[in-house]
Amino acid sequence: MRKDVDLKKKAVVLLSGGLDSSTCLAIASHKKFEIYALSFSYGQRNNPELQSAKQLAKSFNVKKHQIMNIDLSVFGGSALTADIPIPERDLDQAMNSGIPVTYVPGRNLIFLSLATAWAEVLGVANIFIGVNSQDYSGYPDCRVEFIEAFNKTANLATKAGIDGKGFTIHTPLMLLTKAEIIKKGTKLGVDYSKTITCYNPDETGRACGKCDSCLLRKKGFKEAKISDPTIYQK
Amino acid sequence: MRKDVDLKKKAVVLLSGGLDSSTCLAIASHKKFEIYALSFSYGQRNNPELQSAKQLAKSFNVKKHQIMNIDLSVFGGSALTADIPIPERDLDQAMNSGIPVTYVPGRNLIFLSLATAWAEVLGVANIFIGVNSQDYSGYPDCRVEFIEAFNKTANLATKAGIDGKGFTIHTPLMLLTKAEIIKKGTKLGVDYSKTITCYNPDETGRACGKCDSCLLRKKGFKEAKISDPTIYQK
Repeated sequence: MRKDVDLKKKAVVLLSGGLDSSTCLAIASHKKFEIYALSFSYGQRNNPELQSAKQLAKSFNVKKHQIMNIDLSVFGGSALTADIPIPERDLDQAMNSGIPVTYVPGRNLIFLSLATAWAEVLGVANIFIGVNSQDYSGYPDCRVEFIEAFNKTANLATKAGIDGKGFTIHTPLMLLTKAEIIKKGTKLGVDYSKTITCYNPDETGRACGKCDSCLLRKKGFKEAKISDPTIYQK
Repeated sequence: MRKDVDLKKKAVVLLSGGLDSSTCLAIASHKKFEIYALSFSYGQRNNPELQSAKQLAKSFNVKKHQIMNIDLSVFGGSALTADIPIPERDLDQAMNSGIPVTYVPGRNLIFLSLATAWAEVLGVANIFIGVNSQDYSGYPDCRVEFIEAFNKTANLATKAGIDGKGFTIHTPLMLLTKAEIIKKGTKLGVDYSKTITCYNPDETGRACGKCDSCLLRKKGFKEAKISDPTIYQK
């Protein structure tokens, strides 16, 4: 039988190595969870992300960091996993053009499913994911209603949901602006120079400075009045 | 924009190579869907299953058969993916012992998530899965309530669910007994000698005849009054 005291203290944290997931990791760590970080090599373009994830996992003393291979590029359909150009445009345009080509079909559904499986094996009841619906509402799998539906489904899908108390999906960034996320993470010791947000970094991890994700990140640092430590190309 | 006529005619079918999923494939084929079959190499013991899946996909003329690698054995926690002995017992005992060690945490949640992602990329609205809650009620992710919750979640997770009509998860075997499944499949031309149900087959795919899954399959053929074409060890 699992012990409640254990259930309260451990968490699986989805960690991409980007700004949001790193802040989410810092929050879970600050809340004194013993952390099992889960990252994916999913055929994404920006593999320097995984190097960042490794460094961040280390700096927050996670109990275990599991990197799982899952080749979503066999499905294609996204600028992040297939040979589709990543758009360069201004942020207003990005925020008002509907779901962008950088959307990876089913990504958070898949990642949360795998996090649930691992959590069940570990006997862990808490799952953290750094989704955020405020500053960028284009992705359907970053919304409150998706997370709530997933949480119910995960509890119906698993032995832990039937035998025990089931899982709680934590989304501490859901309602924060990018500037608020950056302020919170800075306070909790996240070294953002080690995080990679860019959709199109070079092989050393330097950001392009032009993609939607870079623009949003720049704006976040500006609004937070925190100097932007990101290393840009050129 | 996707066309309704296309949406009605195509389906992603989850195909393990076992008795149930093969029957499910035959049913989708009989309903005149153009079929995109999806199988997983997930670190399971019985890899001859995948050979069966390939043969079955070919014999039902699927449009495409995608085999995806996803190593669930990194999580462990199941007799199918880790070094835990597979139980041998009588069927009454198997049916009344709760969730068995052959349960793979989160398996159908993960497989359906990946099927949803592929369906979204393909512009396909129908997903078939051969789950069955009648003859073997131990697995939480084979129940009607899980499938319904997943279907809602998939529609909230995806662009297809927001822009379009979303997905329909078909579970044509959900309420059938094993004998009824076998009768239906036989009528639709499934060659059950090519399907592998056993949890512990030898390297040539011959069944052990002793695991829960073999016992249930034997009982099914007996009750269906159809001669069992399964090739057993010794």
